[in-house]
Order: sequence, then structure tokens, then C-alpha cells
Amino acid sequence: MNNNILIAQSGGPTAAINAALAGIISAALKSDNTGEIFGGVNGVQGILEENIISLTERFEGDEDALRRLRFTPDMYLKTCRYKLKKPEEDDSDYTRLTEIFKKYNIGMFFYIGGNDSMDTVARIKTFTESRGLSVKVVGVPKTIDNDLVEIDHAPGFGSAVKYVATTFREVMMDTGLYPLEYVAVVEIMGRDSGWLTAAAVLAPPENFPSEPVICLPEVPFDKEKFIDRVNEEVQKAGFAVVAVSEGLKDKDGNYISASTGYVDKFGHPQLSGTASALAGLIKEAIGCKVRSIDLGSAQRSAGHISSETDINESYNLGENAFRYASEGKSGIMATLTRKGNDPYIVEYGYVDVTKVANRVKDVPPEWIDEDNFTVTADMIHYLRPLTEGETKVDYKEGLPDYLYDRY
Amino acid sequence: MNNNILIAQSGGPTAAINAALAGIISAALKSDNTGEIFGGVNGVQGILEENIISLTERFEGDEDALRRLRFTPDMYLKTCRYKLKKPEEDDSDYTRLTEIFKKYNIGMFFYIGGNDSMDTVARIKTFTESRGLSVKVVGVPKTIDNDLVEIDHAPGFGSAVKYVATTFREVMMDTGLYPLEYVAVVEIMGRDSGWLTAAAVLAPPENFPSEPVICLPEVPFDKEKFIDRVNEEVQKAGFAVVAVSEGLKDKDGNYISASTGYVDKFGHPQLSGTASALAGLIKEAIGCKVRSIDLGSAQRSAGHISSETDINESYNLGENAFRYASEGKSGIMATLTRKGNDPYIVEYGYVDVTKVANRVKDVPPEWIDEDNFTVTADMIHYLRPLTEGETKVDYKEGLPDYLYDRY
Repeated sequence: MNNNILIAQSGGPTAAINAALAGIISAALKSDNTGEIFGGVNGVQGILEENIISLTERFEGDEDALRRLRFTPDMYLKTCRYKLKKPEEDDSDYTRLTEIFKKYNIGMFFYIGGNDSMDTVARIKTFTESRGLSVKVVGVPKTIDNDLVEIDHAPGFGSAVKYVATTFREVMMDTGLYPLEYVAVVEIMGRDSGWLTAAAVLAPPENFPSEPVICLPEVPFDKEKFIDRVNEEVQKAGFAVVAVSEGLKDKDGNYISASTGYVDKFGHPQLSGTASALAGLIKEAIGCKVRSIDLGSAQRSAGHISSETDINESYNLGENAFRYASEGKSGIMATLTRKGNDPYIVEYGYVDVTKVANRVKDVPPEWIDEDNFTVTADMIHYLRPLTEGETKVDYKEGLPDYLYDRY
Repeated sequence: MNNNILIAQSGGPTAAINAALAGIISAALKSDNTGEIFGGVNGVQGILEENIISLTERFEGDEDALRRLRFTPDMYLKTCRYKLKKPEEDDSDYTRLTEIFKKYNIGMFFYIGGNDSMDTVARIKTFTESRGLSVKVVGVPKTIDNDLVEIDHAPGFGSAVKYVATTFREVMMDTGLYPLEYVAVVEIMGRDSGWLTAAAVLAPPENFPSEPVICLPEVPFDKEKFIDRVNEEVQKAGFAVVAVSEGLKDKDGNYISASTGYVDKFGHPQLSGTASALAGLIKEAIGCKVRSIDLGSAQRSAGHISSETDINESYNLGENAFRYASEGKSGIMATLTRKGNDPYIVEYGYVDVTKVANRVKDVPPEWIDEDNFTVTADMIHYLRPLTEGETKVDYKEGLPDYLYDRY
């Protein structure tokens, strides 16, 4: 009887992706009809190599480990960036997956990931169905980029917003301390969409004399306007802090990080960051003290300041995904819709995964205040509730007691 | 009657420097003999310009504000990097300070800062005494660099260690997720001493397959040995994470960040970070995916993950400083001595400030394992207790509710 389940994770890590995994495992362990729960290590790539572990063995009867998993950032089952070919071109991977599903008596397959992963979900559903397998294939969303469609916001995003806004608040307060002109430039993740960079708008504490200068990838970079805006802030407050998306481009679509043309002594172009490129421009144009900060992967993995709202929603989406699969649904993604901001209310549901696959949710242009290098009140109202509530992570010897298993 | 007090802050910010300020204010407000409490804005530089505010007006009767101050990172009274001249060369600043002290009836002056600030404390004490003023001049220590002598560890350092080790843990877990060879390089503050960079040694969670590769400024950088060590880690675990001090130098004493010789398209040398310089070397030598992270000022200002031990010690040092001044002591720095690690016990006291001024506490060479790019168990035992306990910062609308006053 194919009542075993298989779960895997894919794409970039977030602080909330393990909460979704914990939600699925918890719901499956409580269910009477579930057999063994398997985890595929390194996404579909690992499943194809039969890199499969038993999650039942690991978590059954260990409530504490399941609780720690919920608050552990990054990905318990690791990840891959493997993209399945179109089955009409090459169906060997699908055939192999079908074999694995049969061998392990898989009745439900859950894939936690972003756009690409939802494409994988859709294709596996179609192929396995065409081969007469009754496996239910369900997607569970996550991405700090928040570019998933058919969901109000993606799990993982709220925690990243909380981390970025908090860190930006601390950096703004730091930058304003010196009796000299000083600009800090902070690079924020999100190559194609500015959702996370916009989080800087939440940063200034009450009474603060300066607003962040926000450069989104949706707005072609105009050097003169930018320098004017930074100068305006420096004149007003004595300092300025810039939030720049790693994916900032000029009007011709070239990345700013590349176009500054730094080369090493052998003439190779350097992998310079966007923040350090802007810092160079500011130094040249204004001549004041400038520092750049590149938070890198710290911003998607910051479990120590994850949002309780985000972690709970991700957990609920995992639980719901299991329920939908148990009810016989397949080819869907668990989702949520915002029903109100004050109080903040979401409604859970599901959506046909083909509506999600390979699409991108952009920042609405009317939420961007291009002239003032900032975002509008609509964006603030959208972001704020996602950061509410503090993580319940345990600490051991002074550090967050994350769950890590070696296998 | 000169029973008013003046407090100022100097040097770089930390997560615990406002706790010391809160300790002094709290003790002064409780004392029967204290007049008004003044704050000098922007350190001695601000005091010279008579940039002085009343802390009595701000905090008397407002327990909540004093509590928030305790947990607010950065510097409530802002800072300066102003260095007083030697009085025998030019005593105009000292004469001006003496006038200000007289005008405001200052009986006690507290200066919270690092090495340079303790030098300022010593000089002001000597000069005011020579002019017959009875002002008590007391230093209160802080620095994330931990290079202050005559104290077991500097307030602010423990919180920075907690932040760096936590973030490094999250980045290590992130880096190990992909089924490909991947190296992350994280740049950590501390230009001349490796205390904070050493905090990376605490990062790996239990069962983790990789150890951080740690590059301290105390060890001349050897490119071949470094690449070998990174390669060894990549072979063993499939990935590696490097912790590098911003102040890493080669055997000739040149900064690694400068010696890689990146120039912009106009031929100007770029202000490249040390991490991105090492990332470039790794990319060239190993050819795998490499990312660099520069946490910048985020690591000295991370109030959201400050160490309770650190905040409490800083607060206690502030309270004690007030007590010592009340007892008539002058020209001293409040200090603490470690009496045990298990349980962790410190004893508070004071030391002649001239013993502290302009000296530097290096990492003991025997705590550095040069061959293995790491630090020894002695360093781990030294660091661990400083990170214990979590901050009690309040949250408002999802973010830490820091105290910021505009003046």
C-alpha cells in the first residue's frame, strides 16, 4: 500500500522553511493512515540518487527535536538547484522518480520551494499521473524574495524583513553617531525584485532624523539623481544610509555591480558587490566617509530573529499541505490570503500549482516612490504585520540551539 | 556646590555602552548628594562646544526610558574621535573644559570609552587637579575589540561575540546546503586584534561536519597555506567557511585588502574589503563558488542579540563607577576580574587609569593554532561565558524598541 510520504526542500534557504517541514511531519505523525515519512536529501537531485532518510525514525516520539526543527533556519534536508528537463524532451529523470516512488511506496510527495520548485511539482504530478501512479504531489511555498504569485506573501519573507529592518535600524543609529559626514551603503538580497530591500523603510526608530535612501531593482539607476538624494540626506541629517538591492541595474539593464568595472591586477573583472560600487560612486562625488555592508546569506538564515508570524504561517502551510494531500488533492500549492491588516488576518487554502510555476510577483509600481528613493505607505502596511512576534528558539551555551543532523 | 555630574561617550559604538550610561544615571538618581546629571553630546568634542543636555530632566521618574536605554545599542550621547593634545603642547582644550566644569558645577565626570578615552580621562584628571578643581574623573570601559588591558574583557565584546558566533553559525549551515563546492568568507571587525574574529570558533552546531577557517591579524597571511587549509575543508565537508579579520596583513605588514590591488576604471585603487580579496584568491586557486560577506557596523550594534552577561556587567560597571567617584576616587577606570569559569564569576573593582591608557591587550600567542587556522580550547573557555543569557529588549511593531532622542 502506497501510504508512505516523501518530503524534500529546494532553492535558497530561509528562516521558515524548516517550520513547513515540521508542520508536515507533525501532521503526518498524528495521522492514522500514514506509513513511513521519508526525507529526500538535496531536493529532487538527491532523490534521483536515492539519497533518502527516514524522518519517522528521527522524529517519532521526539517532540523536542520537532520543536527545535521548527525554529532552525536553513534547510534540514539540504537543497539543490537542479531543474528537471521538459518530459517531452527527456523523461529519464521522471522515469527514475517514478521508480523511486514505487520502490518506497510513496503516496504523497511534498516539495517545499519557490517558483522553480512549483514548476517541478507540476511536471512530476502530470508525469506520475500519466504513468498511472496515484501519488499526490503538493507544493509548499517559501522564498525570501517574496516573488511567488497566488499567495499574499511567501513564508521566509517575513523573517527576512524582520532581520533586514532590525539590522538596518541598528546600522542607521550607528551611522548617525559621528560629528562628521558619513554614508553607509547596505546591500540586500533579491536580484530581480525589491520586496526585501523595501524592508529598510521600517528601520528608522521613532524621532530619527534620517530616512533610508532605497534603490530597488525595479527602478533603473540614475547616478545623478541618486547622488543628489544622498547629498540631500547628508545636508539634512549629517549622514545617510542607503539600502540597495544586489540586482540594481542601469537604464540599459546592466548590473551596477558589473558596470563600475573593477578589475584585479591581472585584469580580471572583480566580483564587486553593488553596495561597494555605490560606495565608490558616493566617495567620488561627495568625498565623505563611506562604508559598505554586504549581509549576504546572513539575511536569509537569521533564525535568531525570525518572525513568529512567519514561522507559524509556514508551519500551518505545512500542516495544511498534508491535509490537502490526505483529502486526495494533487498538483496544488498550499497558500494563504490576507483578509485584513488591523487586525491582521490570513485565510489558508490552496491553488492549482500551474498558476504559480515560473511566474513572478513584482512590487506594484504605485508602491514605489521613484523620485524620493523610497516606497509608499501601502508597502509599509503590507510589510509591518509580517514581522510581528518574536522567535521562541532555545539557547544553549549562549547561542541558538539549532537542530543539525549529519547524514 | 559642585555636585552635578557630567557623562559622555567616545570611540566606536557597542551593544552595551548605553547599559553603562544607564548604570551611572540610575545610581546617580538614587543618590541623595547628586545635583543635576548632564550628558555631553559627541564626547569631549561636544563638551568643548558646550553641547550639553540634562539627563535628569530626561530620565528622572521615567523608569521605562531608563530600561529601554539599557538595551539600546549604539550611543545615546553620540560619539567623537577627537584626541586632546598633550597639555604641555597646547592646553587650550583643557582650559575650556575646566571652564565648562566650573560653569556647570561638575563634581564628577564619567567618560565611557576605550584606550584613547582612558588617555583622555588621565589627562583631564591631571589637568583639572593642577588647576585646583575637585572634580572626580572616572573612566568606564567599552570596546568590541576587547583590546583593553587591566580588565578581563571589555563590555560590548561579549555581545559582539554572541552576534558574530550566531551569524557565523547561520552562515555555516547555509553554506553547507548545496550539492556543490562552495566557500563563504565572512569579514569581521578588529583591525589590530583578532579577539572578535576568534568568536567564529563557537559557531558550528553539534554534529556539524566543518570547522571555520580562522584568519587572525596576529598571524601573517600565507596564501599557499591558506588555500591548502580551505581546500582541505572543502575536500572533507564539501564546503568551507572562512572568518577573516578586516586587519589581516601579509608578512611585510601590508593589509591584504590593499595588496590585491583592485582598481576602478579610472585606475584608482578600490576600497576592497579583506573578505572579497580572499574570495578572489579562493576563486582563482580553487575555482569553486565563493561568496563574501561583510557585516560591517552591524556586528558592533546588534542590540537584538546582545548578551545578558555583557549588558549586566556593563550596567554594573556604570553603577560602580558612580560609587567610586562618590567615595572620592579619581583618575581610575572601573574594571572586572574573572574569578572562575564554572561557574562563571567576576569580581568588580577599579584600576589607575594611567595603567590602561594607550595600551593594547593582544590575543595570547599560545591561544592561536597557527597551523590549523584556528584557536585553542583556552580561547573557547574564555569566550563562551561572555555570550550567556539573552537580551530583554522590548519589541514594538515587530522591531526592537530602542530609545532614540533627537536633540
